[in-house]
Amino acid sequence: MADATYKLILLRHGESEWNAKNLFTGWVDVNLTDKGETEAIRGGELLQDAGLLPDVVHTSVQKRAIRTANLALDACERHWIPVHRSWRLNERHYGALQGKDKAQTLAEFGEEQFMLWRRSYDTPPPVLEDGAEWSQSDDPRYGMIPPELRPRTECLKDVVHRMMPYWYDSIVPDLITGGVVLVAAHGNSLRALVKHLDGISDADIAGLNIPTGIPLSYELDASFRPVNPGGTYLDPEAAKAAIEAVKNQGKKK
Amino acid sequence: MADATYKLILLRHGESEWNAKNLFTGWVDVNLTDKGETEAIRGGELLQDAGLLPDVVHTSVQKRAIRTANLALDACERHWIPVHRSWRLNERHYGALQGKDKAQTLAEFGEEQFMLWRRSYDTPPPVLEDGAEWSQSDDPRYGMIPPELRPRTECLKDVVHRMMPYWYDSIVPDLITGGVVLVAAHGNSLRALVKHLDGISDADIAGLNIPTGIPLSYELDASFRPVNPGGTYLDPEAAKAAIEAVKNQGKKK
Repeated sequence: MADATYKLILLRHGESEWNAKNLFTGWVDVNLTDKGETEAIRGGELLQDAGLLPDVVHTSVQKRAIRTANLALDACERHWIPVHRSWRLNERHYGALQGKDKAQTLAEFGEEQFMLWRRSYDTPPPVLEDGAEWSQSDDPRYGMIPPELRPRTECLKDVVHRMMPYWYDSIVPDLITGGVVLVAAHGNSLRALVKHLDGISDADIAGLNIPTGIPLSYELDASFRPVNPGGTYLDPEAAKAAIEAVKNQGKKK
Repeated sequence: MADATYKLILLRHGESEWNAKNLFTGWVDVNLTDKGETEAIRGGELLQDAGLLPDVVHTSVQKRAIRTANLALDACERHWIPVHRSWRLNERHYGALQGKDKAQTLAEFGEEQFMLWRRSYDTPPPVLEDGAEWSQSDDPRYGMIPPELRPRTECLKDVVHRMMPYWYDSIVPDLITGGVVLVAAHGNSLRALVKHLDGISDADIAGLNIPTGIPLSYELDASFRPVNPGGTYLDPEAAKAAIEAVKNQGKKK
């Protein structure tokens, strides 16, 4: 086994208001629920218990990831570490599906199309036009992204492409500087990163789910590749149960 | 009147657990009270109402200022802006008085000595020895400060000296980049900054109090000096009442 040189922790935000309502969220900036806040605090306690105290944190520019980071870092007394935020860590832009009810969308478009939008690697949902309801075209936080770069819909492949420059240019330099790097982000931006780290194929990434609120710890070698492939959940039992629950959910439908 | 070129907002954290208990706090990292949280949220609402939405925030590395910034920025939907933190924005280090009851200290040392420690420009309290109770000598957040630089007690003059490099090297460049810069900090680090901005004398700064939770807005000219000397409180009535209350408190004693 190669020596572990760098320490990276991934943390998916806890339950959001729209997770609870079963709506497609994407770039819509919804808040955490009370349950989501509890998950975030528990995530920080797991970091504390494991002695994996972050030295720097990277978040998306979305409230549910930012608040998850704040609550987790408060819980392990690391609220004072340097913070960096980027839209490149945002959740996948869900295009015209943003704001739509998942069950209604399934009924309207059928299971095949629905699953293609949800799980295929390279089929994005229809574009969300600028100015439409649930579009972020007028949101000042994205004002520095030129029009040709700003997503209007994304498949996971698009997320990989827009996330990777941030990995190389912002996270890797922090790993090199030393210490433990925390990335607090979203289901799909973290799947994109795990796909890269673990070298998961375009086909196999569909089967990978990252539970909310449970820190996923990676030890990386000098080439920034995992010494512990797949990473290590700080609460493996809870992570296993959460992953099984998602699988069974899929089977029932 | 010179043209306003830059916009700076100062925000003193809301009530902390030790404000409420009447203890000297300094660098001890206490949290906000419920009242302090409410003040912080109100501060964010005042920013929203004034249309003064921060584009970047600077905080100390102390929880009460960090949480004040987080709560205020959440309240005006600017949670996503870039964040910078520095110990140079910390509260004054209160030396051996940290953790002591203010009333007991007054009784023990007498009013003259007490007021000298609290309000003189250049008389620091006794040094707090490394390793003593309420010392931060083992706190990892200060691990990058060499021993000769790390405060063990401070008078306001010391705060001015350690704060000013951060003003020149980190805040001024953000003003130049454009937009509204928020500084969320403490009574004495903000008094130090206001002393510089408004050119207040060493003698007169003793009489200046900055109320908690009310954003103080400065418009600066091209030389980074106020177009509106003394700044403008976003809730002038509440600020006046808070300042009067502090003055009357002094008279009663």
